[in-house]
Amino acid sequence: MAVYTHLGAEDLAALIANYDVGELVSAKGIAEGVSNSNWLIETTGPDGKGARYILTMYERRIDLDDLPFFLDLMDHLAAKGCPVPRTIHDRDGASYRHIDGKAVAMIEYLSGVSVDHPTAGQAYSVGKALAQNHLSVADFGQSRVNDMALAQWSATVERCGRDALAGIDPSLPVILDETLAGFAGSWPENLPGGVVHCDLFPDNVLMLGDEVTGLIDFYFSASDAFAYDFAVTHAAWCFSGDGRSYRPEIGEALMAGYETIRQLGDEERACLPLFARGACVRFITSRAEDWITTPADALVTRKDPMDFVRRLQFYGEHASGLFARGK
Amino acid sequence: MAVYTHLGAEDLAALIANYDVGELVSAKGIAEGVSNSNWLIETTGPDGKGARYILTMYERRIDLDDLPFFLDLMDHLAAKGCPVPRTIHDRDGASYRHIDGKAVAMIEYLSGVSVDHPTAGQAYSVGKALAQNHLSVADFGQSRVNDMALAQWSATVERCGRDALAGIDPSLPVILDETLAGFAGSWPENLPGGVVHCDLFPDNVLMLGDEVTGLIDFYFSASDAFAYDFAVTHAAWCFSGDGRSYRPEIGEALMAGYETIRQLGDEERACLPLFARGACVRFITSRAEDWITTPADALVTRKDPMDFVRRLQFYGEHASGLFARGK
Repeated sequence: MAVYTHLGAEDLAALIANYDVGELVSAKGIAEGVSNSNWLIETTGPDGKGARYILTMYERRIDLDDLPFFLDLMDHLAAKGCPVPRTIHDRDGASYRHIDGKAVAMIEYLSGVSVDHPTAGQAYSVGKALAQNHLSVADFGQSRVNDMALAQWSATVERCGRDALAGIDPSLPVILDETLAGFAGSWPENLPGGVVHCDLFPDNVLMLGDEVTGLIDFYFSASDAFAYDFAVTHAAWCFSGDGRSYRPEIGEALMAGYETIRQLGDEERACLPLFARGACVRFITSRAEDWITTPADALVTRKDPMDFVRRLQFYGEHASGLFARGK
Repeated sequence: MAVYTHLGAEDLAALIANYDVGELVSAKGIAEGVSNSNWLIETTGPDGKGARYILTMYERRIDLDDLPFFLDLMDHLAAKGCPVPRTIHDRDGASYRHIDGKAVAMIEYLSGVSVDHPTAGQAYSVGKALAQNHLSVADFGQSRVNDMALAQWSATVERCGRDALAGIDPSLPVILDETLAGFAGSWPENLPGGVVHCDLFPDNVLMLGDEVTGLIDFYFSASDAFAYDFAVTHAAWCFSGDGRSYRPEIGEALMAGYETIRQLGDEERACLPLFARGACVRFITSRAEDWITTPADALVTRKDPMDFVRRLQFYGEHASGLFARGK
């Protein structure tokens, strides 16, 4: 949540001169994303009527070889009518350029705000938008291995070390070891899938009232099961932030919205309890590693891994009923 | 350069409902200022045609008792035609409100970008804008003791301790002690003055081409000599960032622009060498304290106090000629 690189007016004007977007009028570094620096840019616009864009500089975590994949995906989904920002291409047709060796891309600006406490109407719309994405990637034609999937979760536990994990909470190493042991050999591999968002938290969705105006931050997108992406979204939306209370009306609305666009098959539905627990482990492990490697007094707010341990426990106790047909 | 507090869409919508600005359309946390959190807010506007505002949450460093002073000053200067953002008052006429015990104010959004490498034309415009501010405060009717003035510089040296200062650079304690000893008894107290900005660095000026579109961040404003404020601006604009090279064409343009609006008297001009060195000590001491108290790996970029030691040395050698009439 910071801007890691300084870009002055002169740098920005020089960059923008490569695009058909008019002259620079305003630029504000914005506190979005944790891996990139972002600026909200205002220009006179291609037609002189004014325009706004998000300028993203890719600072770390993102393998530059993956950048065309992410930008192509956003363009593909936008072209299909999904509320996803298009990439603005420069006059030579390039989707990204470089400043001082760092890649930068100009992205369409979308209105809307991120909600903290979604209503059922909002969750219903998010479910619809998620299913629309799932249908729209059928002819995307690219794929990317999910490097935040099952194998990575175990590797992260080993990297962190069980002593460090126990320093977060004494129960954490055992919970992770037992849960990961339970996944071994039982993780389904051949469910319907495609390139999915994998990180559709409320802060990656822009809304105006109940309408979804933008799905953003596709930088964890990868090839995976649609049902797993649904489970990630369920875990991200249907609980209080600390995971202490499940909000059944949000879960039901998310599912109902999704299924107005795309029906989940019986086999997909049967895997949701497993996938929901997997989604929890995905965020427990990445948050635990960030927790261990980020100084407590750093300006970046560390997210508590235990918020998703509570969700994991809830799903372990309740998920089979939660995702049954007719719920 | 960060957003210290999370405000969700619901918090922002509830705040905005107190103002006659329409409905919330977008909100981005922006990386501006070091003491406050700021958001660029877009609304449907009072007339339904759309409007933008800067929302500032006062986090630290600012004494809340001073907040009405800062906001009144901005309103006063804006009413005089200076390019300063107005405060948006709520429906009850209040210039600020509270969220969770923290003060927040809605400020007019102004276009423009901050330059890194000003041209002479830009420095000329900044000089004019500065002088316009100085003329416009004559009937402001409020005052505020400058708590970043001479007495504070010595106090900061004592707080830091000479060993810690020597850790930044072995020469630093001696340079500060000798310079401050030279100021003692010779600091002029009765020059023309009023409430001045005291921190008009390039990143606090918004420009479009050579035009000044906004002077922002008045949170160091205090009662002081106009010539001292000019000297601060001179030290902030007329050097390469590291202070290694003076840019004479920028200094001459800044002065020429200023004097098209307000002539500096002979006594004021005679004090400029002293004030310029004082301005350097003001930023050396505050930067040194930040340097000593900020972890090297913090996300906040520490500013090198030595950048202003180099300016101090330049002014010590050249300032008497630099500010002579006819230069």
